[in-house]
Amino acid sequence: MPLRFKDLPVADAVEQRMQLLEAKAGTPLPHLRHHSMDPETMDRNTENFVGAVQVPLGIAGPLRVDEVEYIIPLATTEKGLVAGINRGCKALNLCGGVRTLITNRGMTRAATFECGSIGQAAEFVEWIDRHHAEIKRRTEGKSRFIRLAALQTQMVGRSVFLKFKCYTGDAMGMEMVTTGSDLACQWIAEQTHVLLVTISGNMCVDKKPAATNLENGRGRSVIAEGQLTSQVSLEVLHQSPESLQKVNYCKHVGSAMSGSFGFNAHFANIVAAMYIATGQDPAQVVSGSLGATLIEPLDDGTFHVSVTVPCLETGTVGGGTGRETQSEVLRVLGLEGGAKSPGANADTLARVIAAAVLAGELSLLAKLCRL
Amino acid sequence: MPLRFKDLPVADAVEQRMQLLEAKAGTPLPHLRHHSMDPETMDRNTENFVGAVQVPLGIAGPLRVDEVEYIIPLATTEKGLVAGINRGCKALNLCGGVRTLITNRGMTRAATFECGSIGQAAEFVEWIDRHHAEIKRRTEGKSRFIRLAALQTQMVGRSVFLKFKCYTGDAMGMEMVTTGSDLACQWIAEQTHVLLVTISGNMCVDKKPAATNLENGRGRSVIAEGQLTSQVSLEVLHQSPESLQKVNYCKHVGSAMSGSFGFNAHFANIVAAMYIATGQDPAQVVSGSLGATLIEPLDDGTFHVSVTVPCLETGTVGGGTGRETQSEVLRVLGLEGGAKSPGANADTLARVIAAAVLAGELSLLAKLCRL
Amino acid sequence: MPLRFKDLPVADAVEQRMQLLEAKAGTPLPHLRHHSMDPETMDRNTENFVGAVQVPLGIAGPLRVDEVEYIIPLATTEKGLVAGINRGCKALNLCGGVRTLITNRGMTRAATFECGSIGQAAEFVEWIDRHHAEIKRRTEGKSRFIRLAALQTQMVGRSVFLKFKCYTGDAMGMEMVTTGSDLACQWIAEQTHVLLVTISGNMCVDKKPAATNLENGRGRSVIAEGQLTSQVSLEVLHQSPESLQKVNYCKHVGSAMSGSFGFNAHFANIVAAMYIATGQDPAQVVSGSLGATLIEPLDDGTFHVSVTVPCLETGTVGGGTGRETQSEVLRVLGLEGGAKSPGANADTLARVIAAAVLAGELSLLAKLCRL
Amino acid sequence: MPLRFKDLPVADAVEQRMQLLEAKAGTPLPHLRHHSMDPETMDRNTENFVGAVQVPLGIAGPLRVDEVEYIIPLATTEKGLVAGINRGCKALNLCGGVRTLITNRGMTRAATFECGSIGQAAEFVEWIDRHHAEIKRRTEGKSRFIRLAALQTQMVGRSVFLKFKCYTGDAMGMEMVTTGSDLACQWIAEQTHVLLVTISGNMCVDKKPAATNLENGRGRSVIAEGQLTSQVSLEVLHQSPESLQKVNYCKHVGSAMSGSFGFNAHFANIVAAMYIATGQDPAQVVSGSLGATLIEPLDDGTFHVSVTVPCLETGTVGGGTGRETQSEVLRVLGLEGGAKSPGANADTLARVIAAAVLAGELSLLAKLCRL
Repeated sequence: MPLRFKDLPVADAVEQRMQLLEAKAGTPLPHLRHHSMDPETMDRNTENFVGAVQVPLGIAGPLRVDEVEYIIPLATTEKGLVAGINRGCKALNLCGGVRTLITNRGMTRAATFECGSIGQAAEFVEWIDRHHAEIKRRTEGKSRFIRLAALQTQMVGRSVFLKFKCYTGDAMGMEMVTTGSDLACQWIAEQTHVLLVTISGNMCVDKKPAATNLENGRGRSVIAEGQLTSQVSLEVLHQSPESLQKVNYCKHVGSAMSGSFGFNAHFANIVAAMYIATGQDPAQVVSGSLGATLIEPLDDGTFHVSVTVPCLETGTVGGGTGRETQSEVLRVLGLEGGAKSPGANADTLARVIAAAVLAGELSLLAKLCRL
Repeated sequence: MPLRFKDLPVADAVEQRMQLLEAKAGTPLPHLRHHSMDPETMDRNTENFVGAVQVPLGIAGPLRVDEVEYIIPLATTEKGLVAGINRGCKALNLCGGVRTLITNRGMTRAATFECGSIGQAAEFVEWIDRHHAEIKRRTEGKSRFIRLAALQTQMVGRSVFLKFKCYTGDAMGMEMVTTGSDLACQWIAEQTHVLLVTISGNMCVDKKPAATNLENGRGRSVIAEGQLTSQVSLEVLHQSPESLQKVNYCKHVGSAMSGSFGFNAHFANIVAAMYIATGQDPAQVVSGSLGATLIEPLDDGTFHVSVTVPCLETGTVGGGTGRETQSEVLRVLGLEGGAKSPGANADTLARVIAAAVLAGELSLLAKLCRL
Repeated sequence: MPLRFKDLPVADAVEQRMQLLEAKAGTPLPHLRHHSMDPETMDRNTENFVGAVQVPLGIAGPLRVDEVEYIIPLATTEKGLVAGINRGCKALNLCGGVRTLITNRGMTRAATFECGSIGQAAEFVEWIDRHHAEIKRRTEGKSRFIRLAALQTQMVGRSVFLKFKCYTGDAMGMEMVTTGSDLACQWIAEQTHVLLVTISGNMCVDKKPAATNLENGRGRSVIAEGQLTSQVSLEVLHQSPESLQKVNYCKHVGSAMSGSFGFNAHFANIVAAMYIATGQDPAQVVSGSLGATLIEPLDDGTFHVSVTVPCLETGTVGGGTGRETQSEVLRVLGLEGGAKSPGANADTLARVIAAAVLAGELSLLAKLCRL
Repeated sequence: MPLRFKDLPVADAVEQRMQLLEAKAGTPLPHLRHHSMDPETMDRNTENFVGAVQVPLGIAGPLRVDEVEYIIPLATTEKGLVAGINRGCKALNLCGGVRTLITNRGMTRAATFECGSIGQAAEFVEWIDRHHAEIKRRTEGKSRFIRLAALQTQMVGRSVFLKFKCYTGDAMGMEMVTTGSDLACQWIAEQTHVLLVTISGNMCVDKKPAATNLENGRGRSVIAEGQLTSQVSLEVLHQSPESLQKVNYCKHVGSAMSGSFGFNAHFANIVAAMYIATGQDPAQVVSGSLGATLIEPLDDGTFHVSVTVPCLETGTVGGGTGRETQSEVLRVLGLEGGAKSPGANADTLARVIAAAVLAGELSLLAKLCRL
C-alpha cells in the first residue's frame, strides 16, 4: 500500500497523502482539509484517511412521531428534497402526526457449508438442531449485546446455508453478527468435519436487493401510518388524496411490471439522507429502498396512508455514529449512543426514519401528480 | 415551514436553526458549524440548511484503469473498507490493471397515461410513434445537453407507460430528463386529450431495485475486467483464485435462492463510498448494487475476473458535484465539471467506480473465504 | 433404452411396454389402452409411446371476444373451474363482451458465446451488428414461416448472450427458432472463432419465470378488457365490483411483498386448461402465469376490468396441436392448422385464451371475497 | 349457463353439448367422444363435461430412485422429451442411481384481514398468537387428514396477511387448506370484528411464480442427487461433465441477469409431463419450475449433480388422481391412493418427479451444449 506511509506519525502520513492529492489535482484542496476529525482516531477506522467530505445538512419538521416531536435531519444535495419532506411533515402533523410499529428485529448473516452428499447434509442439519445451545453460546461469546434470535438452515443441493439472526442492541450489528457467526461456524466445522466455504453465502442478504428481505425484514421492520384529510392534502400538498391514491396505484402497477421490489416513490431518498446524517451505513440504503406505500380511503372520507419499510438497519453506536458531526445529529434527536434499554435508541431511530419516509412519499406523490 | 424563517437574511436563518438544534441537543454543536459552505448558496439547494455532516475520506490505489492510474476516493466509516479495496487494487495492478467497457448509456423516466380503453390506448401508442420528432423537440427544449435516445411505450390494461431514455452529457440527468419528459408529456396530453396521471409511474425505475434495470441498465452500464494470477492472488489476497471462484459460486447460489438481483459480494459498499466522495446521489446506490461478479478459469492457469455493473448513474456536473469538498475530489480524479466531449467525464467516473468495485469484490471474497 | 424394443414393429413394441406396465401395476390397464392414436405416428413424436392419458374436457361460454362468440374448451380436473369461468363469461357477455389487443409477438432463443476479454466481446458485438443480414438469412433458412424480428446482444463479463426474436407464423415456434438460431450461431462461431458455449443461455427465457418476460413478453402479449356494471357483478358474481376491486388490491399487495411476478388470481388455471385442450406446451403455463389483473372504477359508475398477459406462447400447427382430440378442439374454435394469413390463428387463440383468463379472474376474485 | 342443460339427464346433456361442438366444428368429433369416463361422475367434477382430451403417454426409465426402480410416465407431445429423459435415466442408473431428500412439507393459504390502524393490527396479531389452539381446531375440523403446521402473520400497512401452512397427507391439499383456513378465518373475524377481505391475498402463493416459494417451498421441497462419471457422461450424454458444468454455469448467469426464479434448464417440462400423467394440477407447474440445477466437480474426478426443487405440490388422492387413466399410471408407480402412513405416497411421487427432473436436466444440458 504505497499510500500507507507506515513509518511516519499519523499526522505526517495524512499530510503526505493530502500533498499527493493536491499534486494530482494541481491545486490546493483547502476544503477537504477543513474538518473536525482527529487523524489519530480516524486512522484506525477509515484507512488512509485524508480529510472529510462535507455533505450539507438541512432540517425538516418537526414531525410528530408516536406523540414526540422530532426534527428530521437530512444530509443531501438534492434540491427540493428537504422542502418536500418538510411539506409532508406539515401535512402529517396537521392530521395528528405519525404512529409507528416495529414488526421485526434482527441482523442476519448466513454462512455456507458444503457436504459430500444430501445424506450428509441432512445429518449436518440435524446436528445443528441438536447443538443449538452450544452454537448460541459461541455466537454470543464476544459481545455482551448480541443475542442469537434464530438459526435457520437452508439446503441447496448438498450445501447448507446456515443463517444467524441476532439481536444486537443499539448497534446495527453486521460486524458483531459476522464475528459471532464466524466463531460459531469455525467451531461447527471443527466438530463436524464439514467444509465451511464462506461465512457469507449471500442468503444474509447484506447490501444486495432481495425478495427475502422484502418479506422477512432485516434490521428493524417498521410500519408508519397517518390519517390524511382532504382539506390538509389539498392545502398543503396541493392535491386531493384521491389523486395521491391514483398516482400511487400507477406506481404499484409500474413496479409490478418492471420486476421491482420497491412499491414506493422514493424511500431511498429519505433513508439515504437520514443515514448519512446519523452515521449509518449508506450501502444499506439498498435494503432500505424495499417496501410499499399504501394510500387507502377510510369510511369517514379521510385516507389511511402508510409505509411498510422492512429493512431499516439502524444503530446508534458503532460504525459512523461516533463521528463528530454524526453524533451531534444523533444528540439532536436524543438518540446518541446506547440506550438504557439496549436497542431502544436504534428502534426509535428506525421509527423516526420510517415516519420521515412517509412524509417524503406523500410529498413526492403530490409533486409527480399531473391529474 | 416553521424552520424556514423567510423574513431573515439567510445567515441569520441558519443561525436560528442551529440554535434550535443546540437547544434540542442541550449542548453546542461545534462540528456541524465547522464547514466550508456558503449559506447563501446552500439555501438554494439544501433547504433549511444548517451546516455539514463530515464523512471521513480515505484513499485507495492508485488503480490502473484503462492504462491510466487513478486514486480511489472513498468516503466511508466502515472499518477495513479502504484497506480492503486497496488490497484489491494492488492485486489488480500487479496483474496488469483493469480494463473497462461501457455497454449502455442513458437516463430514463416513464410517465403514465390513462386511456379509456385498450382501443384508445393502441391509437395513443400509434400517435406517439407518429409524433416522435415533435416529442423529441419538446423533450430536448430546455437544455442543450439532453438528447432523446429512445422512446418506449408499454401498455398495462388501458394505461400506457411512456419511457423516455436520454443522453444527458456529464450530468447524471434525472432532473433534466424529468423536466424534459414532463414538458413533452403535457404537450402530448394537450394534443391527444389522453389523461396524464403522473410523470413517474415507476417503470423508470429510479431508486427502487428492479429487474428491468439489471437487464437494461440505467445511467452507465459498465463491465470491468482483470486477469488474476495464482501467485498474486495468494500473495496479496491470501487465497487462491480457485477459492475465490468457489466462494463467488456459493454467493451466486445464495443470491439465486433468496430472490436477489445482486449476484455480487458488496458492489454497494464501493459505489456508496465513491458516490458520497464525488457528490453523486447516494440513493442511487440502490441500482448501483445490481449486477454480477464473475471469476472464471482461463486456459493458461490464470483467472478472468469481472464485474458487470449495469447501473452507475454518474455525473460530474449538477447535484452534489459542485459542493466544495466533492468538487475537490473530482479534481483529484481529473473529472471536475463537464468534459469537452459531453459525457466523457461521467463516463470515466463510471469506469473508475466499476474498476474499484472489482477491486473491492476480490478483496471481500478473499476475506469471507474459510477454505 | 430397455423400453425401446427397436427390433419389433411399433405396434408390438407398444404392446410389450403396456404389458410391462401391467406387470408393474399388477392389473390390466384398460383405460390407457383406450385411445384414438395411431402408434406408428405417435412413435415418431412421443417416444416409447404406450397409450393416452385422458383429461376430462368441460366447456364454458360461449364468450364474446372481439365481436365473435367462442366456446371455451377447458381440459381440467379442478372441480368448479369450468363453472367459475362460465360465470365470468356470462358476466362479461352481459356487459358487452371482451375486447382484446395484441401488443407484442415473437418467440425468443438466446445463445451464449464466450470471448477472451471484454475487448473481444465488444468487437464481437460489432461484428454481429455488421452481419445482421447474413445472420437473418441463416436463421430463416430452414423454414418458410420464420422471420427474424430482432437480434439483441447482452454482455455479462466477457460473455455475449445473443437473443433471437422471431415471428413463427401459426407455430408456437420454439423448435423453429432453436433450429434457426443454432444454424446461425454455428456459422457465427465459424466466422469469428468465438466460442459458442450453448444455444440456450437462459436469457430466452423458456419455461422459467422471469421478469424480462413479464416486461417484454414472449409468444403473444395480449390485453383483454371488459366493462363491468354493478348490476351484472352483483347478480352474476354475487359481489359488487367495489369488492372485487378491493380483493384484487389485496392480491397485488400480497404479490408485491412475496416477490411474485404474478399480480393476478389464477391466470395459470385457465391457461393450463386451455393449453391442454388445444395441444399447446403445458410447460409454458409457467410464463402464461405472469401478468396483472386490473379493476378500475370509471366515471360512469361501471368498472374497467382487464388482464395483461404478456406471454401466451400459442400455436395452431406443430407440437400437440395435431393430435386427434386436440385438433378437434381447435376445429371447434375455428382455429385448426395454419391460417391463410400466417399467424392469424395463433393470434386468435391467444386472444380467446386471454379473454377466458379475464372471465376466470372475475369469477375467482368474487369467490375468494369475504366482504 | 346455456351449456348446462339442467333439466336433462347427464348423458343427454353431454350429448347436447357434443352436438353443439360438432355443429361449431362442422364435422363429427369422434375422438373427443372416445374415452373411458363415466359422464355421471364427471359431471360432478369437470362441469359441462363433453369428453376427454387424449395426451400421449410415453415412458422413460426405469430410473433407480432411493434404491427402487421406477418407470417414469410422461404425458407429452414434445418430440424428444421422453427420449431425452430416458437418456438421463440411463446415465444416472449407470452411476448408481438417484438419492432424494425431502426438506420441507406443507400446503399454504394466506387470507387478508384489514384493520383500522397499525395499532389494531398489532393487537390482532397478538390475538392470533393467543388463540392458536382454537384456530388450529377450526382449521382441522373438516378433514381428518389436515394438520396445521404453522401459522404466520405478515403486516403490510394496517392489513394482516394470515398464512396457514398445513400437512395434508396424500392430498395435494389446496382445497382442504382453503376450506379449513376459510372456516378458521370466518371464526376469527366474528370473534375480533376485524374485517376479513379475502381468503387468499396472494401471499400463499398459489399458481403464481414467487420468490417466497423459491426460498420456503410449497407442497414438497425435494433435492435429488447423483454422481456422474466422465465415462458415463461421454458415452451416454455425449458430452463431458465439464461441458455440462459450463453450460449450466452460463444458464445461471443468464437467469440471474434476466430476473428469473428458475436456475435450471427445463424443470417445467418434466414436471408438466408427470403432473398430467398422474393427475396433478397442471397449473402448479408454475411453482414446479422454480429451483436450481447444480453440477459440481468432486475430488475423485466425478461430478456431483443435483436439482433443488422447492415446490412439488403432489398428491395421490383427490383432484385428477382418481381419473381412469391417471389412477392407472399411479398404480404402475405403486402410488395409487392414500398410503398407510398418510403422506408417504405423495412424498414418493415428489421424490420420483425430482429424480426424473434431474435426468431431464442432464440430458438437455448435453443437448444444448455446443462446446
